[in-house]
Amino acid sequence: MMPLDSTGDTPCGRITGMSRSEFDFIESIRRRTGSSPLVPLGIGDDAAVLANGPAGESLVAVDMLMDGTHFRLDEAAPELVGRKSLAVNLSDIAAMGGRPVAAFLAIALPASHGRSLAERLTQGVLDLARDYDVILAGGDTNVWSGPLVTCVTVVGQPNGRSVQRSGAKPGDWLMVTGSLGGSLTGRHLRFEPRVREAALLMELVEVHAMIDISDGLAADVHHLARESNVGVTIDGDAIPISADVPSDLPPEERLRRALSDGEDFELLFAVAPDDGSRLLREWTSETPLCRVGTVTAEAGCRLVRNGNVEPLPETGWTHELS
Amino acid sequence: MMPLDSTGDTPCGRITGMSRSEFDFIESIRRRTGSSPLVPLGIGDDAAVLANGPAGESLVAVDMLMDGTHFRLDEAAPELVGRKSLAVNLSDIAAMGGRPVAAFLAIALPASHGRSLAERLTQGVLDLARDYDVILAGGDTNVWSGPLVTCVTVVGQPNGRSVQRSGAKPGDWLMVTGSLGGSLTGRHLRFEPRVREAALLMELVEVHAMIDISDGLAADVHHLARESNVGVTIDGDAIPISADVPSDLPPEERLRRALSDGEDFELLFAVAPDDGSRLLREWTSETPLCRVGTVTAEAGCRLVRNGNVEPLPETGWTHELS
Repeated sequence: MMPLDSTGDTPCGRITGMSRSEFDFIESIRRRTGSSPLVPLGIGDDAAVLANGPAGESLVAVDMLMDGTHFRLDEAAPELVGRKSLAVNLSDIAAMGGRPVAAFLAIALPASHGRSLAERLTQGVLDLARDYDVILAGGDTNVWSGPLVTCVTVVGQPNGRSVQRSGAKPGDWLMVTGSLGGSLTGRHLRFEPRVREAALLMELVEVHAMIDISDGLAADVHHLARESNVGVTIDGDAIPISADVPSDLPPEERLRRALSDGEDFELLFAVAPDDGSRLLREWTSETPLCRVGTVTAEAGCRLVRNGNVEPLPETGWTHELS
Repeated sequence: MMPLDSTGDTPCGRITGMSRSEFDFIESIRRRTGSSPLVPLGIGDDAAVLANGPAGESLVAVDMLMDGTHFRLDEAAPELVGRKSLAVNLSDIAAMGGRPVAAFLAIALPASHGRSLAERLTQGVLDLARDYDVILAGGDTNVWSGPLVTCVTVVGQPNGRSVQRSGAKPGDWLMVTGSLGGSLTGRHLRFEPRVREAALLMELVEVHAMIDISDGLAADVHHLARESNVGVTIDGDAIPISADVPSDLPPEERLRRALSDGEDFELLFAVAPDDGSRLLREWTSETPLCRVGTVTAEAGCRLVRNGNVEPLPETGWTHELS
């Protein structure tokens, strides 16, 4: 979940209970980092923004994945581990309204697995990289006695300008791509990062704020609301629930999963109402688009269900990988 | 040793014996990465070069360090582990003739250590970052049951243009900053990355090729010669031996250590003879500068000692951390 908060998106902190103190930790670092005109946006979003003079900006995202936390090497094919290692970063770049350009793959390989693990993992990275016109431009290959660790860095460019979490305005529609919940049954290894969808959004409308849903819709709605200094009302009946959430569960449990499972890697974004309705009319991607709520001047995050309003808890991630 | 070969510089591969197959692995990836005008230099140097249009280029270096391989957390202060995690990347950027701009810190923290490890490690990163005007712009904080792993990415800019390993010309002088050998007794945690020295070099002369000495002078001479498609003759009597190499050792053993210990993180570079002698006259840095050899059209790397010429073995790294 949002690590040094500018770049990461995996929910490990909460798994081991850093949670509140992690947030404090990140805030304490944020205060100590200094500033530079070369780094217009540092810690605190899906990716950092670096200034390249008149040529514009670069986006940089970094995510570290560990065996047993973000994947299980005894269950997942190494190609899928490599794929996910890159995909989570492509999702971060997309959430900034950007397109990825180059990737860097650092790995700590368990000595017991030898070269075939490195080969298969790297092939998974290369295959996804090709799908998104990303060049594998470097990295660091290590062997050790510990479990597999991957750390991918992706450098990208904004489609026009970068979109932060902080620009949502009262009255904006909150919208999401795709559907939510149940990712840990397998989708978290195979999801398509919403790079093309982000480019289409940037082409069609002015996106006020955007984040990728890694901690779960509820938690990421809170992140966006906090950074934008606004409130949010979510329409519980409008949330698109993934087919990965069993249909025989009670409706309440299905909604809870869509709100809190996490690792959906869909885009959550805020646009003006006119732009929102235009998107619903002019959206040409096969990926569904859905309005899930409204930005409010009144602080706090709320959930409306069956006409009743209740607080939306920042439940976020509560599951171990299963 | 140079992992996906564009960015890493730590000798872990050889410790666990990937060596030759690792080189093959990197070469096989290099062939599969595709190409893009946005990535003029990918896998194969100290850092990758990304194109930013008319505004110039960015440099990107990535290094992953693991407890028990690149440091021992039971012996090294966490601040020094953080410091080294950043320093090895600053050294890579310097070796490209660049200056660092922004750093990204990803960590997998052992759950047993809690927040104080994260705090102290990050403070070590922040302190060194401040010394070199680098902004900590993001990262990824994780907690797990394994040993400490850090992965730092640094983005920099060339001082004018970037310097690769491949530009050495027959007749060039080979020069090094500082002194070599014995780094593992402690200097590997505290070394000053040669960022300022690289900037001064770039200001004073045209540097034909450069690499930072991470695998040991002998191994890195081989890397530079291979990439430049030249040979090298090293003057064994001219090699500056660090005070960290015990003075009571036999001269042969002292030389061997300077050639092969590694983790010196000094700059090894090739310049035209006129530029080399000018550097010796006009060098204003306190860091010593020394000519250690000559680039030759004849292939192969040779060592001259007491008037005798012998092959220079690519001994590289042979030590465990002690």
